[in-house]
Amino acid sequence: MKIIDVRVHDVRYPTAASGDGSDAINRGDYSAAYVELHTDEGITGTGFTFTNGRGNEIACAAIEALSHHVRGRTLAELFAEPVEFWRSLSADVQLRWLGPEKGVIHMATGAIVNAVWDLRAKAEGKPMWQLLAEMPAEELVRSIDFHHIGDALTPAEALKILEPDEGYADRLALLRRDGFPSYTTSVGWLGYPDEQVRELTRAAYAQGWRAMKMKVGGPIDDDLRRARLIRAEIGPDALLMMDANQVWDVDEAIANMAVLAEVDPYWIEEPTHADDVLGHAAIARAVAPIRVATGEVAANRVIFKQLMQADAIQVCQVDACRVGGVNEVLSILLLAAKFGVPVCPHAGGVGLCEYVQHLSIFDFLRVGRSLDGRMVEYVDHLHEHFEDPITVVEGRYRLPEQPGYSVTMKAASIEEFSFPDGAAWR
Amino acid sequence: MKIIDVRVHDVRYPTAASGDGSDAINRGDYSAAYVELHTDEGITGTGFTFTNGRGNEIACAAIEALSHHVRGRTLAELFAEPVEFWRSLSADVQLRWLGPEKGVIHMATGAIVNAVWDLRAKAEGKPMWQLLAEMPAEELVRSIDFHHIGDALTPAEALKILEPDEGYADRLALLRRDGFPSYTTSVGWLGYPDEQVRELTRAAYAQGWRAMKMKVGGPIDDDLRRARLIRAEIGPDALLMMDANQVWDVDEAIANMAVLAEVDPYWIEEPTHADDVLGHAAIARAVAPIRVATGEVAANRVIFKQLMQADAIQVCQVDACRVGGVNEVLSILLLAAKFGVPVCPHAGGVGLCEYVQHLSIFDFLRVGRSLDGRMVEYVDHLHEHFEDPITVVEGRYRLPEQPGYSVTMKAASIEEFSFPDGAAWR
Repeated sequence: MKIIDVRVHDVRYPTAASGDGSDAINRGDYSAAYVELHTDEGITGTGFTFTNGRGNEIACAAIEALSHHVRGRTLAELFAEPVEFWRSLSADVQLRWLGPEKGVIHMATGAIVNAVWDLRAKAEGKPMWQLLAEMPAEELVRSIDFHHIGDALTPAEALKILEPDEGYADRLALLRRDGFPSYTTSVGWLGYPDEQVRELTRAAYAQGWRAMKMKVGGPIDDDLRRARLIRAEIGPDALLMMDANQVWDVDEAIANMAVLAEVDPYWIEEPTHADDVLGHAAIARAVAPIRVATGEVAANRVIFKQLMQADAIQVCQVDACRVGGVNEVLSILLLAAKFGVPVCPHAGGVGLCEYVQHLSIFDFLRVGRSLDGRMVEYVDHLHEHFEDPITVVEGRYRLPEQPGYSVTMKAASIEEFSFPDGAAWR
Repeated sequence: MKIIDVRVHDVRYPTAASGDGSDAINRGDYSAAYVELHTDEGITGTGFTFTNGRGNEIACAAIEALSHHVRGRTLAELFAEPVEFWRSLSADVQLRWLGPEKGVIHMATGAIVNAVWDLRAKAEGKPMWQLLAEMPAEELVRSIDFHHIGDALTPAEALKILEPDEGYADRLALLRRDGFPSYTTSVGWLGYPDEQVRELTRAAYAQGWRAMKMKVGGPIDDDLRRARLIRAEIGPDALLMMDANQVWDVDEAIANMAVLAEVDPYWIEEPTHADDVLGHAAIARAVAPIRVATGEVAANRVIFKQLMQADAIQVCQVDACRVGGVNEVLSILLLAAKFGVPVCPHAGGVGLCEYVQHLSIFDFLRVGRSLDGRMVEYVDHLHEHFEDPITVVEGRYRLPEQPGYSVTMKAASIEEFSFPDGAAWR
């Protein structure tokens, strides 16, 4: 199967006006720099990286700039030398300067790499989680670039973590029966008034959620009022997570969490700047037993490595398309397993829930092998634009069963929401 | 003075073919995503961010995406609320997601911010170093965003560092007499054969340089052979710096520097991945007294803060346009002063020498106030394309005297090397 064409779409959903997705630093139109890998066998691999609206064209340009590394190549070639393929994108001798391995160029790498894996999963007729979960440990290890993480995780250690075990069938049966746990972020955006937060919280609780996340990082009195409101609705046993979206300084985060501790937060997410490994470590020491969570804008495996080496996070929130796609996510899941940090992937936005459900299922089946402290983020937006949307029942993700990585958008949605010429934007 | 038009140029110099600039991970066509701020008073502010060739169009797209933050605004407005202006770029509620504060979007911020400062320096008829050096301490401090670095540097500390002192006139007189020390990187690119390295080293020594940098990160035997060759030419007293351009893992860097210690390296630059603060700290502990240097791809002040907090670097190599321009560079110079780390800015490429000379001169006059261990990088490429090129005599930069930041390109060069339509690329 040969990739004969690479097409890039700038797809944007106008969410900013509604307050959906509003937090301490973002007011976004949820968007996807979306790539299609067309093949000579008629199967199309799709992937995207998520953006917040303006600038989506920059991510599209980055995908175009990297596209020559897959155009004209066969799927067999790309998977014959997976690290070489991955580095052709992440370490391109000219484009690497634009990162390295961070920001727009790395997000574009993620979109293309995910599309290549989607293509393979579709070719094999398996959902992404199953493709990964059934893969020999040696092949998974061969897919990982250990460059710059060798001081924290060796291929031999990775192999050992991935070795199949007898519990696999039981874990799979458990997921088929119960689904994968999730939490909802749809109740507490900063842009929502109190009454809306109360109603959404009540509705979510009634639908089965026992873990809810609210945004913080506004005036501390407002944050506390909203937190008390949610805690009052969900009772003492449900989990209440908080997300500051990096707005605080280190000392500020520590001081504010001392105030918010009153409502028993389960974790504080992005308490400070995403690059501040040492800052997260200082915060984690100060706010324990409240957990520190981060990852949605952690650029690459080297940042995750350090967050774990420094005991800076107790929850790993890897994103499916901020880092360089499946290959790099594998290394991060393995680092998390080695350091004993549960993975609760970042989702929300558009299509991110579709992506990360596969990662958490694979993590449970072959890597972390536990549901303790594991949850997939859930938001209720925009799933209707995907061919194979998530199914969440009583606060749990059902296993996706269609072949691929579940991020193929409906052609009509691509057309309507293409920027700037789609009907939604004209 | 009002900015009435923002024009962006994709300018690329075909350097890859010659082996100039070749190192362990880059083979670049030195390029600039170049921005002009045209005003209603006829003065034009210019700035750029450097790239390695392919992908320069992505940086240009990022500048376009940010340009609405300066188009139609007056210079007085932008400097009345400098942090608010800086955050309008670095913390744009939609574009921030593409970084945050890293990669293409942050480099574009640097280009625009530098162009705004260039405009002001030209308007005041002062070279950039002089504009900064004569600025009241309070105004310099008001130009800095202390967000996320408050745990390492407070405005009060910054103010104290910047207070004028009686030595200013003497330091300025010293620079006018002797120029600013530099070192040359033009002798030891990986793409050059041994004989060329020998001849270039000999020529540089004859021209007055007593500090030279070579690229390492190839096979260790090759690195050692080339290092011995250079050391033999320059004698035991001249400084020999090494630059691995991030190619090594942490353990590999430590092992290789144990071998290369034989030739008495002054520093090892970019021994491992640029994001690896903890890795640099481990290397610094292991290779002392050889210094660890990094910074050319350190994304922002938060990374520099940690490198200093962790004692990970003994030389700070801030780049003028990788971080968010003058405002953020100020914070990094001050962090370096607070932590006692000498600043030797990254240059090379195209136009980077022109930029950073101003930063080092200002640093000496108002911040670090010492020449001990301070050197500006020098390469001999492409200066002829600038209106106000650097002047280096006997290995020392002479003070630039023309108004502005010295990075205005000749109109003919922009035309000839514009990509893809300039004569050089057609």
